[in-house]
Amino acid sequence: MSNPAVATPVVDCLQYSNWNEEIFRQFAAAPVHAVHVTIAYHESFREMVLNLEEWNRWFERFSDLIVPGRTGDDVRQAAADGRTAIFFGFQNPSPIEDDVGLVEICHTLGIRFMQLTYNNQSLLASGCYEDNDTGVTRFGRQAIAEMNRVGLVVDMSHSGERSTLEAIEISERPIAITHANPAWWHPALRNKSDDVLRALSASGGMLGFSLYPHHLADSGDCTLESFSQMVAEAAERYGVAHLGIGSDLCQDQPDSVVTWMRNGRWTKVTDYGEGSASNPGFPPQPDWFADSTGLANIAQGLADAGFSADEVDGLMGGNWLRFFDESFGPRGS
Amino acid sequence: MSNPAVATPVVDCLQYSNWNEEIFRQFAAAPVHAVHVTIAYHESFREMVLNLEEWNRWFERFSDLIVPGRTGDDVRQAAADGRTAIFFGFQNPSPIEDDVGLVEICHTLGIRFMQLTYNNQSLLASGCYEDNDTGVTRFGRQAIAEMNRVGLVVDMSHSGERSTLEAIEISERPIAITHANPAWWHPALRNKSDDVLRALSASGGMLGFSLYPHHLADSGDCTLESFSQMVAEAAERYGVAHLGIGSDLCQDQPDSVVTWMRNGRWTKVTDYGEGSASNPGFPPQPDWFADSTGLANIAQGLADAGFSADEVDGLMGGNWLRFFDESFGPRGS
Repeated sequence: MSNPAVATPVVDCLQYSNWNEEIFRQFAAAPVHAVHVTIAYHESFREMVLNLEEWNRWFERFSDLIVPGRTGDDVRQAAADGRTAIFFGFQNPSPIEDDVGLVEICHTLGIRFMQLTYNNQSLLASGCYEDNDTGVTRFGRQAIAEMNRVGLVVDMSHSGERSTLEAIEISERPIAITHANPAWWHPALRNKSDDVLRALSASGGMLGFSLYPHHLADSGDCTLESFSQMVAEAAERYGVAHLGIGSDLCQDQPDSVVTWMRNGRWTKVTDYGEGSASNPGFPPQPDWFADSTGLANIAQGLADAGFSADEVDGLMGGNWLRFFDESFGPRGS
Repeated sequence: MSNPAVATPVVDCLQYSNWNEEIFRQFAAAPVHAVHVTIAYHESFREMVLNLEEWNRWFERFSDLIVPGRTGDDVRQAAADGRTAIFFGFQNPSPIEDDVGLVEICHTLGIRFMQLTYNNQSLLASGCYEDNDTGVTRFGRQAIAEMNRVGLVVDMSHSGERSTLEAIEISERPIAITHANPAWWHPALRNKSDDVLRALSASGGMLGFSLYPHHLADSGDCTLESFSQMVAEAAERYGVAHLGIGSDLCQDQPDSVVTWMRNGRWTKVTDYGEGSASNPGFPPQPDWFADSTGLANIAQGLADAGFSADEVDGLMGGNWLRFFDESFGPRGS
């Protein structure tokens, strides 16, 4: 399939691949003009900074392919230059430790998304794998207020139902679920209830559809048609303007990485997360989305499902770009 | 004395006061439109970030008085708004630990000056109180190259003679001695030789004249006339364009702070630095420079010493502003 004409930049609002030149060249080939990349799961502040340092070396070495992304305009400039703007995010708040002052420090360092939890209870809220959901904690309320002030987006992709609904309510700016799908299409702890998705979109928030096999109906055998029909149904329920892509692509990663994501340093007993003892590693991707060049297939699939060209542009990047413009600086900036 | 008409912003390129609202209001009254403030002596990276967090709280609380300074244009904007742009610097490289990647991270966080040493040997070079001066170390050469790349200025105010001459030679961009005076005016380990000041200015570097009493002829009894005549002599020797003010003002600090500056965590035996066992604390300032409002006295003193209005403008800020424009970003930016 070829990429239909896309009038606006293409955005993938979550990837966590084993970064290398080949992957950056796939960004250009796709093309994808902005990618939100995870730079921390369980890292301390100083460990997260080591990951930033590694990105700085890639920016220096591959300056013809990737540039640091801080604002929506950086996406437009990257698209004009044929490059990809990289936006940083945390899947867990561990890098802010117990210090609300680190929210602004992390924003200054370029962080633009932070999940309040990753599966487990955090200092801020409850993860979707906990039996008991505390909702947003005392520190969580302070962190959300500070994130709102500086322009660091609250991401609830791995959070529990109550915590997510409370975060939507407490946050004075729209939040995001950067990578998940509706539970009505594929019931999974990580996919989101209709209640959550209605509250999210009603408050101006964004959902990024995941291509991670555990989030897909029929896993790696999920068809492009089924995925695209799900997007069409979601657009009817929540409004197409609140939807985009957050593929959760974990390309070329060894299985040790999914073990780190699930287990961090919090357990001596293996936690299999969305996998199982018999299926512990990364599941195989659908053949129509093996890497970033598969974004062109999705654009075609959405067109085939009946979306207009403008709607496809919005779903493939325009909606995220509007959200970036409104979310990444102080309010009213 | 009243402030003579100043056509360009006023810059003080080193202060380390016990920051509070009164001091920020003195900035406005002076007026001084840019101040380079020390945020680390012996801090680790994480401890330095705690100091940044404290500044972030002051920027939020006193937003009518102070703003973060990153570029020369930030100084012009602050001057237009009647505010003061705050530029961060380290007096010692301890916050980059043993990690050259932290140079760019610190630049992203707003650091614009870093001394390679503070009195003692560091990982990068030798301080002016060591008996043996190694010159610039292997790590020091790598750090200078990285500082040159990102636009973080090498400051050799507290470094030894050989290390300073080598830093001037190795650095591909002009360096600074933000706060010191010529040793020919007042011999002190911290003041600089004619050789150093000639090499500094010949390479396009800048000297900021210190008002710290231990650096002044006759200490706190130094007259404004003596100071101004010294500046006139330095302008003849090195060229007026390479000179500015770096007052080293340590206002309202308890003596425990000078003890921390001199001793950090490196000694159990008290080091008195430029003081002595009988004079261990902060020495009294000259009455014509007790706080930032004394900058107006200096401008008048320089005019009385025969400098033209344009030269006074340059000495009081224009020369630093040109250096800021040329130094704080990637080369050619």
